[in-house]
Amino acid sequence: MITIEDIRAAAERIRPYVHRTPVITSRAIDAMVGAKVYFKCENLQKVGAFKARGACNAVLQLDEATAQRGVITHSSGNHAQALAYAAGLRGIPCTIVMPSSAPEVKRRAVEEYGSTIVTCEPTLASRLATLNDLVDKTGAHVVPPYDDARVIAGQGTAAMEFIEDQPGLDVMMAPVGGGGLMSGTAIATRALAPYATLYGAEPDIDSDAKRSLETGVIQPPPQNLSIADGLRTSLGEVPFAELRHHHVQIVTASEESILEAMIVLMERLKVVVEPSAAVTLASLLERPELVSGRRVGIILCGGNLDLRTWLKPS
Amino acid sequence: MITIEDIRAAAERIRPYVHRTPVITSRAIDAMVGAKVYFKCENLQKVGAFKARGACNAVLQLDEATAQRGVITHSSGNHAQALAYAAGLRGIPCTIVMPSSAPEVKRRAVEEYGSTIVTCEPTLASRLATLNDLVDKTGAHVVPPYDDARVIAGQGTAAMEFIEDQPGLDVMMAPVGGGGLMSGTAIATRALAPYATLYGAEPDIDSDAKRSLETGVIQPPPQNLSIADGLRTSLGEVPFAELRHHHVQIVTASEESILEAMIVLMERLKVVVEPSAAVTLASLLERPELVSGRRVGIILCGGNLDLRTWLKPS
Repeated sequence: MITIEDIRAAAERIRPYVHRTPVITSRAIDAMVGAKVYFKCENLQKVGAFKARGACNAVLQLDEATAQRGVITHSSGNHAQALAYAAGLRGIPCTIVMPSSAPEVKRRAVEEYGSTIVTCEPTLASRLATLNDLVDKTGAHVVPPYDDARVIAGQGTAAMEFIEDQPGLDVMMAPVGGGGLMSGTAIATRALAPYATLYGAEPDIDSDAKRSLETGVIQPPPQNLSIADGLRTSLGEVPFAELRHHHVQIVTASEESILEAMIVLMERLKVVVEPSAAVTLASLLERPELVSGRRVGIILCGGNLDLRTWLKPS
Repeated sequence: MITIEDIRAAAERIRPYVHRTPVITSRAIDAMVGAKVYFKCENLQKVGAFKARGACNAVLQLDEATAQRGVITHSSGNHAQALAYAAGLRGIPCTIVMPSSAPEVKRRAVEEYGSTIVTCEPTLASRLATLNDLVDKTGAHVVPPYDDARVIAGQGTAAMEFIEDQPGLDVMMAPVGGGGLMSGTAIATRALAPYATLYGAEPDIDSDAKRSLETGVIQPPPQNLSIADGLRTSLGEVPFAELRHHHVQIVTASEESILEAMIVLMERLKVVVEPSAAVTLASLLERPELVSGRRVGIILCGGNLDLRTWLKPS
């Protein structure tokens, strides 16, 4: 298992390269939920998401010979940018396998960090075949988005900072997609705030983490596409084991609540959040009784919203 | 004329009640403009806009007898919230005359601060008649949104902080609507960074400030409605005199550029801005040669965007 010592080591390792993000609050949101809610702003993190933490922790641990052969992953989301950022810090080659369906804005972001994009068909099979082919040819080192102990330890540094800066939290919440953030959060919280309740949040039309924990078997994500695009993936095996071990409970939210929570967060906190970052608050808007009167920590996972499609004058 | 001493006194007076807002930067925006651009985040100010500064400075100066009769203004925008906030601090009555066309979200924001709303017809004549009638009845003290030396001195504290926190600015920019922010900014900048170029920005379909300064006579705003709704007003007389005296130059931006700049600001800075706050950067996206290679300070005036109408899933 991954331990708090792994997270402490990660924090030391990545400190010069990531932001200690601020914790912010809103009296209006507290009133809506009937609790004192603290938001850890990973949307203000490097690359706009907590993913910078895990990617940096993985890349900075590579021995020199491995690093020089470069790193590679398949992703069209925040992990792609994060790995590109981390590789750029070490000045090593980085290749991102991206489906042809990836939006131009995501491609550009990766290229700005000096990485190479290899386009594949928009299927998991094509992604993996393309990735494996490149690994065979170049000897590049794969940094997975969540199913990796180094990545999880890196993600856990967000909760560690959060508890250091805001002691006394009764509840700790993060969204669950592949489970990298939530498992790192669970490990840090169990060590540093052992009596806190751990809630992982996911869209209710895409509640594969909930069904996985209920059945004891990792379930595939359904075909339903939530607006919380960052969470459209099944749990990784390492995160699954950690979530079970640390008794993480899964809460869900409707698509309507996720959109409402996005609006509330942006209106009240004045920071940009992506839909995945709103699922936590959305679940509390639906069931405030879960946290009534308690001190709740919420990790706002990211702020990479494609505003060219989302923002429209009325 | 209003002096830097008025602004210094305002800063002392309002310090406990307003945020010293952060200054943030983006390498991506610097690259777009070809300059080093610093953003003063008045969108993160109390009530979500610089208006809190001027309203507090006015309300805190009232003698006790006047204050007890209450304050009043007509506004459907950020000044209404700001005056409600300032009156709440002193625990005095506050009445806001609002047109029946004002969005519900604005009404609720004012009511949350404990103010009374009196609804009028959505015409300037009705606003003024309703206001004057209430003043006659209650003896309430009018705090105008911009045409007032106390308000202007309060708004000038933003530029004063900005120059203190970020010395060496070559250019200072703010948007121009009624001119309260820009005139306070001009006074503070001429005193503290005398060689800086002063640019006030407005929509080019609504360039009444530019025409007013060119003709030497205050011009009415045109019928064209810019998305920069906070700037839909003619210059006040006091601001007009200050802008002339301090040689403020007016720059303009198209509606397309304003929307583009809003997207760029929110994507790159991860903070929410209202359209009025994007006109400055928009003018530089159109004419980067104006500031090429210089250190540019931009006051982001506010973040009160009606996200229920602006934010739409694609």
